[in-house]
Amino acid sequence: MITPDEAIKLILGAIEPLPAEEIPLEEAVGRTLAGDLFASVDLPPFRNTAMDGFALRSEDTLEASTDRPVILRIKEVAGAGHVTRKALRKEEAIRIMTGSPLPAGSDAVVMMEMTQPAGDGRAAVFQPVRTGENVRGQGEDVRAGDLLAAKGTRIRPYEVALLGAQGFATVAVIRKPRIVHISTGDELVGIAQPLGPGQIRNSNGPAISGALRRWGVPSRDLGICRDSPRELKGILARALRKADLLLISGGVSVGDFDYTRGVLEGLGMKEVFWKVAIKPGKPLLFGIFPPDSGRDRPAVPVFGLPGNPVSVLVCLEEFVRPALEKLQGYDPAHPRYHLHGRAENGYVTPEERQQYLFCQVSREGEEFRITIIRPQGSAMVGMACRANALAIAPIGKGRIEPGDTLAFRWLK
Amino acid sequence: MITPDEAIKLILGAIEPLPAEEIPLEEAVGRTLAGDLFASVDLPPFRNTAMDGFALRSEDTLEASTDRPVILRIKEVAGAGHVTRKALRKEEAIRIMTGSPLPAGSDAVVMMEMTQPAGDGRAAVFQPVRTGENVRGQGEDVRAGDLLAAKGTRIRPYEVALLGAQGFATVAVIRKPRIVHISTGDELVGIAQPLGPGQIRNSNGPAISGALRRWGVPSRDLGICRDSPRELKGILARALRKADLLLISGGVSVGDFDYTRGVLEGLGMKEVFWKVAIKPGKPLLFGIFPPDSGRDRPAVPVFGLPGNPVSVLVCLEEFVRPALEKLQGYDPAHPRYHLHGRAENGYVTPEERQQYLFCQVSREGEEFRITIIRPQGSAMVGMACRANALAIAPIGKGRIEPGDTLAFRWLK
Repeated sequence: MITPDEAIKLILGAIEPLPAEEIPLEEAVGRTLAGDLFASVDLPPFRNTAMDGFALRSEDTLEASTDRPVILRIKEVAGAGHVTRKALRKEEAIRIMTGSPLPAGSDAVVMMEMTQPAGDGRAAVFQPVRTGENVRGQGEDVRAGDLLAAKGTRIRPYEVALLGAQGFATVAVIRKPRIVHISTGDELVGIAQPLGPGQIRNSNGPAISGALRRWGVPSRDLGICRDSPRELKGILARALRKADLLLISGGVSVGDFDYTRGVLEGLGMKEVFWKVAIKPGKPLLFGIFPPDSGRDRPAVPVFGLPGNPVSVLVCLEEFVRPALEKLQGYDPAHPRYHLHGRAENGYVTPEERQQYLFCQVSREGEEFRITIIRPQGSAMVGMACRANALAIAPIGKGRIEPGDTLAFRWLK
Repeated sequence: MITPDEAIKLILGAIEPLPAEEIPLEEAVGRTLAGDLFASVDLPPFRNTAMDGFALRSEDTLEASTDRPVILRIKEVAGAGHVTRKALRKEEAIRIMTGSPLPAGSDAVVMMEMTQPAGDGRAAVFQPVRTGENVRGQGEDVRAGDLLAAKGTRIRPYEVALLGAQGFATVAVIRKPRIVHISTGDELVGIAQPLGPGQIRNSNGPAISGALRRWGVPSRDLGICRDSPRELKGILARALRKADLLLISGGVSVGDFDYTRGVLEGLGMKEVFWKVAIKPGKPLLFGIFPPDSGRDRPAVPVFGLPGNPVSVLVCLEEFVRPALEKLQGYDPAHPRYHLHGRAENGYVTPEERQQYLFCQVSREGEEFRITIIRPQGSAMVGMACRANALAIAPIGKGRIEPGDTLAFRWLK
């Protein structure tokens, strides 16, 4: 059995980012840039004032003091967006608004609050103003020709602001993957249906759709497939033509999983791994349908997920999400367990597997306290809902004692 | 001037959650439950097996050992979803799949891998099996009548799985807020337009839209409003009828902001605060339009955001986001600065204000190292794009020295 880290490496190694598409800038937050973008203009595009105040010649203020203010003639009052054509001469000032270009002849700005009206269209300045004071230099933030954002950058609102300021109304980003998922199992009925004997509702369908939707990835839920190799084969063959990634949940126990595997291999899937040293989720299967040039179909990765709802969601967050991120062109660092806390209670975990433990974590001062929910099981979704965090008992740990330090992440 | 914590308290205190709507379960991730939901069935709904294996009577296996296995007659092989009607008698076993109901008469399951075929439709068991071993009891996770999820719960994929298993095809959640935003300023042009003298592109529009979209909140960008009280008044009056929250960016400098304030007050806004002890973002304005029963309009909160792009986004994340969360019915805990790191360099911050510092944070072993980007400014969006984290210099700090510990959060 491979370790979870090895599994993630294999997944990321097997998946290539999808092709690019051009989209409006305001839709690009969370998407990945398909190429480097360079600045066409300086930012700021012109020398301007960081404050409301008077543009002036700093040399005129050298002698200014509280007792003996320098008196400047207000040559003009320029509103925001208004560009004065006048040039400053000795002992003149022009009133300008934050962001306005500095008038010719001026080299500094004194804040409005630091001056006083001196009657007759004049203003008093009570202290020397340094050259460049309250002035934003042209290009002090970005120079034309600079790299604005590199290929592979995940766009945040800050990048949108920067690219907008540079005039990019659209950007080329990696397109979103289309996911198709199928739940298998004769025991399943739809969530709106009544339960017969031995039946359970297919909660995996909406849970997977819901998680993917939350991650901004569109998906199509094909519903329930009976435990029939012929039916599954037909559904998968059709799904393969429309999906960038396939998810099959359920039917993963030792006996019946071989047949799902068999169907997938019959359709041409190359298995990358089957079984990972984790709990829950051990029977996770991952494979790739190689590109089919005849049908103009690129490679399609496929996950065979366990059927139990807690296992499904743990595998989705730990293994499918990195795959989705790689498809979208960014280096997945998710989920990262860089929070740590102290266990309040003990738990016996399988030494040969990494266990994901559902916990209630609370903060006490600067420290996090972790209460492991007991018992936990791969079908106990009510238990999972009582947790606010997932902690890790790494391979080799075996037994958690109260007081042990555990890495955890919030469950969102 | 109020502190940022006081500002957030005032915002949350002034805002009421929006009314509920009924939506499909799979669309509910990230939404807030509008009422308590209770279980109608036990989960598991019936006693079932946690493993593929043989259902048996534990008392038959008491004497089993590696040397002297107990031999059981395989009465039936029941596939997944198949419910056997047969009852087990002494020294009988029924092969069942994970999740299948336990046949009458059985009280435990032995894993397939722990048995061996013994010929003639029989199986050998090599060790005693405990009562209840590999059995999931009816209702061991959830009992009919239990509270599944309380009003105010933010729905995660785990809640979707739980509610799906309980047969909820739709759920009542707080509806999403509709946001309208307007950028003001004579100096602004659209992002796709060429720049004239003294003009800058309105990057705030797409940056705000992009951030809201990423947070799952629909918004309408009304574009640019000239610096004309009449024009602004007309636009705001129309927007008020369609928005759950108004955002106005730009025109916040001391001089011209009074006129935006005046227009808002003329339309009936009650000011909650103006100016917060933060940097960037000091001139932040927050107010409420009281409910208008004549027009059947509930209260509408409004933010007057600064015009500089870095200030806008800091205010959006720190103050508008909590407001959006409260509108959606959950207790906003965002953003929380619970990561800490060590400053690599110094910076002088204003002692009377809390400064948000754009930083590059890297991890070294278990420790985070914070490099504060220098210089930084409220218009320097290129600078902000080079940061991966935002650190806080609290009020009273004044000067950061290398080696100081700072709280930070990732910029996403």
